[in-house]
Parts: sequence; C-alpha cells; structure tokens
Amino acid sequence: MPYVQIQITREGATREQKAQLMRGVTDLLEQVLDKNPATTFVVIEEVETDNWGIAGETVTVLRERAQKAAVAP
Amino acid sequence: MPYVQIQITREGATREQKAQLMRGVTDLLEQVLDKNPATTFVVIEEVETDNWGIAGETVTVLRERAQKAAVAP
Amino acid sequence: MPYVQIQITREGATREQKAQLMRGVTDLLEQVLDKNPATTFVVIEEVETDNWGIAGETVTVLRERAQKAAVAP
Amino acid sequence: MPYVQIQITREGATREQKAQLMRGVTDLLEQVLDKNPATTFVVIEEVETDNWGIAGETVTVLRERAQKAAVAP
Amino acid sequence: MPYVQIQITREGATREQKAQLMRGVTDLLEQVLDKNPATTFVVIEEVETDNWGIAGETVTVLRERAQKAAVAP
Amino acid sequence: MPYVQIQITREGATREQKAQLMRGVTDLLEQVLDKNPATTFVVIEEVETDNWGIAGETVTVLRERAQKAAVAP
Repeated sequence: MPYVQIQITREGATREQKAQLMRGVTDLLEQVLDKNPATTFVVIEEVETDNWGIAGETVTVLRERAQKAAVAP
Repeated sequence: MPYVQIQITREGATREQKAQLMRGVTDLLEQVLDKNPATTFVVIEEVETDNWGIAGETVTVLRERAQKAAVAP
Repeated sequence: MPYVQIQITREGATREQKAQLMRGVTDLLEQVLDKNPATTFVVIEEVETDNWGIAGETVTVLRERAQKAAVAP
Repeated sequence: MPYVQIQITREGATREQKAQLMRGVTDLLEQVLDKNPATTFVVIEEVETDNWGIAGETVTVLRERAQKAAVAP
Repeated sequence: MPYVQIQITREGATREQKAQLMRGVTDLLEQVLDKNPATTFVVIEEVETDNWGIAGETVTVLRERAQKAAVAP
Repeated sequence: MPYVQIQITREGATREQKAQLMRGVTDLLEQVLDKNPATTFVVIEEVETDNWGIAGETVTVLRERAQKAAVAP
C-alpha cells in the first residue's frame, strides 16, 4: 500500500505524461517490492516556478537567466 | 500540537464539509490523545483528478469508466 | 481515495490509541464526503520532541519548562 | 541536500517575499549545518484559508471574526 | 528538479531494493519529462505497520489476519 | 500559522543545531511575512542516508565515494 508524492514545477506536463509517471512508479513498486498496484497511490503536485527555490533562487529566475544565456550572441 | 494533512481529490467538497473535517479531526485528537485544539492544525489539499493515480491510472479515467458502466444498458 | 498524514510528537501514544485515530479519521471521511474506507490511508508520524519546534523552541524545552512550573512551590 | 517545505495560507505573499524566504532558509541551512545551497530545495505551498484549520475552525472564519472585532465600537 | 517521496511500510526492504527504486524513479522522470537526474531527489520513508492504517485498521492487524487465513485448514 | 518541514539526512545534527534551525526559520517568517511565532511549527525529519537518493544513487554511496576520493594518493 505505498503512497508516492511527486513534486515537479508546473511547466506544462501533459495529462498523458502524468499518467505515464503513475504507471511507471506503480510498476516499479510492484517489480521491486511486490507491492499491490490496487493499493498504490501516486499523487503529483505541480508547483508554480515562483514557489520552488533552488540555491536560494526561484526557478522562475533560473529559467529567465538560462533563456537570456541561450539567446546571447 | 498535531499537524494533520488531508489529501482528497478535488471533486466539489464544500466549505462546510471541509470545516466539518477540521472539527472532527481536531475533536478526535483531543479525545484520543488529549491534544490541545488551540495548537492543532488541519490542512486540506484538494488534488486534481488528473494528478491522482491509483493502480497506475488517473482518477479521471476511473471516474469516466465508472460513469460509462453506470449508463450501460 | 483519501490520504491522511497525522504528525504528533512521540510521547507514548499506544498502539490502541493510534488504531482509534485511524478508525476515527476513516469514519469521518466516509460520513462527511462519502469516501470509501477500503481506499482510505491514514499514516501516523511520531516526531521526536527534539525535532518539533513551536514558537522557535523545541517541544523538549517546552515540556521541561512546564514540568518545572508544575513543581514550583 | 535538504528539502524544505513551507506551508502558509494564501493571503498575498509577493514574489519578492517568497524569494526572501528561500534565500533565508537556504542561508540558514548553510550556516547551521554546512549544507550546500546548490542542492537545497525550498518549496512554498500557499493554502486557501478555507483549507487551513486551527482549533477546529477555518482560517477564513478566524480572519472574519478578527476583522469584526477590530471594527466593533 | 523533482522531489519524490515514497512511503512504504517498514517490512524489510533492502538497501539494494531501495536503491533500485531511486534509480527507477529518477530514470522515469528523465524519460517522461526530461528532468535532470542531478537535481532529482527521492526520499523513502519506511513507516511502522502500527502507524499505517487502511480501511480503518493498522497494517499490523491486516498482516496477522492474512497469516491466520493462510494457515487455516 | 505556518508549518515548515525540514528534511535532512541523519548525519549527526545536534539538538542545539536543530533548535537553531527552528529559531531561524520562525524569525524569518515573522520578519518577512509577519507570521506569529506562537503558531509557527517547524518539524525536522532526519532521513537515513540509505533512504535519500540524488541522481539515482543513495547518499550513503555518494558519501563513500567522496571519502575514497579524499584519501586517494
């Protein structure tokens, strides 16, 4: 009866991609630990990039910087 | 000083129903463990049905299938 | 298919008290939101008093202070 | 490689305030435990006041009562 | 920069099995969403069977009942 | 009424260091968002290095490799 929570930034994951994650994690738990899929929960939380920090900066800022670097001559 | 997190799918729970859950859980913790209601937090997270998986499928898909079965001749 | 996490300080909750919490929360979710008990998970986390802070102090320190106050003449 | 989750009520925290929290927590973990900022995650969850309970009541209700008390003659 | 939390009951998962889960989930997030493994965290929480409830009962009780049923004539 | 959860690997954080984190985070929330310390909870979870994965490997393995590299001629 595993419970899995996946937190990702909200950046356009599609319904199909999220379903793939659920299937993949559920299969993995069955293969590795023989867990019953019927009682395996996978919950995905999509977090705004303003609300996710890494190295003390928001992902919003990191993405902007990466984009500027990419278009710099 | 308990902290309780309740995750449910977002399927129309009303403000009054959510308040009932909060009162109920807070009372339960006082009755069973003598926890002080003044420092009992209950946080409810409503998760989109596309983001909740069970048995490797989204709740969205499960609900659609149940509905089709219900209307089948 | 709700998932409920209850965090309390580790201060001697018995197996029976924890089972009471699980039954109580599961019943509550069925009564208020018609959630199926068969797919209701309740996970209890018992946190060391050194690891729980309130108002910037550990519960360990709060408990010691309360005990001293109780025995003060 | 710490992971920090901050839950607050959704009551207008600005992008700049949230960035301040991220920087502050990341610095704190480096100062106190020598944790590497590059692998420190801080995730902020803003919870609707209808979904946060304290003492068995929603924060929505607590805020309304506080406001009425403030304007009472 | 995903963060994944896997909660399972503490029933003897080995170090190698846990490492397999970490690799599997990290690979899945890279394949499905192109997430960078270097900033993918997977945290496994092993929960005592006394602290995990399903259908209002502890997993401890469920396991005992299943074992009795298995040895019944 | 914020709730903060700090997950770190269990690698010897002292009681005093943990108390420093609690004070620091509580102060920060008061300074940045004017949150009341009396209802600010900080919960620290110390996770075994076998149970924390980054880049698909356990922190146990990462630490061993770092140590070998450090003593290599």
